[in-house]
Amino acid sequence: MGGRDLAGLPSRVERFIGSDLLEVEQIFRNELASQNPYVADIFAHVAHFRGKRLRPMLLLLSASASGPIVEAHRILAAVVEMIHTATLVHDDVLDEAETRRHVATVNTRWNNETSVLFGDYLFTHAFHLASSLDTTLACRLIGRATNIVCEGELTQIRERGNLELSEEAYLRIIDGKTAELCAVSCYLGGHFADADESIAKSLEQYGRALGIAFQISDDLLDILGSEDETGKSLGTDFKKQKLTLPLIRLLSQTDEPEAGRLRELITQADDEAWTEVVRWLHRGDAVEYSRSRALEFAAAARSHLQDLNDSSAKRILLEITEFATHRTY
Amino acid sequence: MGGRDLAGLPSRVERFIGSDLLEVEQIFRNELASQNPYVADIFAHVAHFRGKRLRPMLLLLSASASGPIVEAHRILAAVVEMIHTATLVHDDVLDEAETRRHVATVNTRWNNETSVLFGDYLFTHAFHLASSLDTTLACRLIGRATNIVCEGELTQIRERGNLELSEEAYLRIIDGKTAELCAVSCYLGGHFADADESIAKSLEQYGRALGIAFQISDDLLDILGSEDETGKSLGTDFKKQKLTLPLIRLLSQTDEPEAGRLRELITQADDEAWTEVVRWLHRGDAVEYSRSRALEFAAAARSHLQDLNDSSAKRILLEITEFATHRTY
Repeated sequence: MGGRDLAGLPSRVERFIGSDLLEVEQIFRNELASQNPYVADIFAHVAHFRGKRLRPMLLLLSASASGPIVEAHRILAAVVEMIHTATLVHDDVLDEAETRRHVATVNTRWNNETSVLFGDYLFTHAFHLASSLDTTLACRLIGRATNIVCEGELTQIRERGNLELSEEAYLRIIDGKTAELCAVSCYLGGHFADADESIAKSLEQYGRALGIAFQISDDLLDILGSEDETGKSLGTDFKKQKLTLPLIRLLSQTDEPEAGRLRELITQADDEAWTEVVRWLHRGDAVEYSRSRALEFAAAARSHLQDLNDSSAKRILLEITEFATHRTY
Repeated sequence: MGGRDLAGLPSRVERFIGSDLLEVEQIFRNELASQNPYVADIFAHVAHFRGKRLRPMLLLLSASASGPIVEAHRILAAVVEMIHTATLVHDDVLDEAETRRHVATVNTRWNNETSVLFGDYLFTHAFHLASSLDTTLACRLIGRATNIVCEGELTQIRERGNLELSEEAYLRIIDGKTAELCAVSCYLGGHFADADESIAKSLEQYGRALGIAFQISDDLLDILGSEDETGKSLGTDFKKQKLTLPLIRLLSQTDEPEAGRLRELITQADDEAWTEVVRWLHRGDAVEYSRSRALEFAAAARSHLQDLNDSSAKRILLEITEFATHRTY
């Protein structure tokens, strides 16, 4: 866990941008307020499983590290959170997930059709909200980032069951599906605080490296986490035959004939195979290697902030890179 | 079929705005061109089952009826077609449809996950493209219209199996899921041709009434159509327990104890029940009544064009109202 008091991070964020985050929440709710009782019901339910608010935090902190936080930032923070929530709702359909953060998913509580449509509803509201700004820039950048997120997820599906997936291809996938939206959040924070373009670009690179570190850690949690803390069932990626870094590393470090047995287990993809594969993962260096890769990306993220003037917001952005790689939920 | 040569309509449209439609097609393709071979493959496949291009036609004809067609119109025509295609791809997941226009749907050829993500990809590209215009107006209006489309579809799902669904509630659903996007297409055509706001509003009302007439006819085709001509399997709404106008009318005109039997068949919702219900539908006035309602909306659509100056585009818009209610595909 390192020596830092990471548990204190959320409350420090809270003290620093807590009132902005509350306003973001209000904008989020106002945009989605519906006369339709069915829609209102689903929305109230989804509010239970929204998570760490990482992207709005990144946007507001990037703003504050570059200049004053203005209304456009709060609107855009609500937009990126809405896009992210839409992808969560659709992910749960894709993963046939039954719970998220200890709460029944929309597809379990209602049905897949409702999940698909409610995700669409969130996507289109996000763009509706983004277009309340004076310029089309945010719509354009968020539109492009969301396209890249979708391409990343599509590639992940195509590569399902591909036992030859390389670390490089894995990194490209998570760059799209996770890091892109973090990167654009940071860029928009800087840009709408009138930061120099070079600073906004550095923030974007920070967000991208952080997003990759965050996703590698997330994939590790799917193996090592506790179901109680994460609020998700474990081994989901494995059972969907999505190869993540620990398994890619294990495959590359295993010789025949063991490798043959390992491939069989991955193809089998059930609970029994999972229990055996977890043992394999702990025996070799797969976990340690993956963790060190996450730490490298976290360090890269920190290095992208070197040209920013010192500020409380910058210090929190630096700490978030440690939170991302040491968290247990 | 009425006395008109409706078969001639598409070629008249073709002659009049054919070169604009080709440019729209090019914009559509350029926006979706992907380096990712998997995405490119799905896109090439989806191109096979795109249909009548009703919404881009409405947008371009509304533009031409109000002033000159400009580049913004062609971009927006591609945007509304992309939104519509996204809803088709997601509808096919919802309906578990196997074919559309004689071609395997994305969920059949690939899988549901791919359909969900590819639909998202189309939605977000539509907003990305819309934000290439100078103002956020189009993004905002299309965002709002798409929200309403999603709410309409969500309501339809909630009302599935509700044997008490009223004609009024049915009309509200199709106003959202179909008419809204037609209405905004016509409005944008007028607005971006610098039409007076009152003319743009009349075009919007035309589009809304036309969309309702079009959807009632579509729902009739799901009962009366030929699978060969429509390229879809029939009775889909019935088997999903979605009550459409003919069935709502039949229920309202049937007394006990027959009504009890009819409700049983609707709840049964299989092929056998469908065969029997089709016979019931033909015995009473349900088909005739539904057709007359479609004709009333078509007439209302025409009346909304009365303040527009005469033009070739206006004449085609008038004819489209007849095409909408007399088509067989």
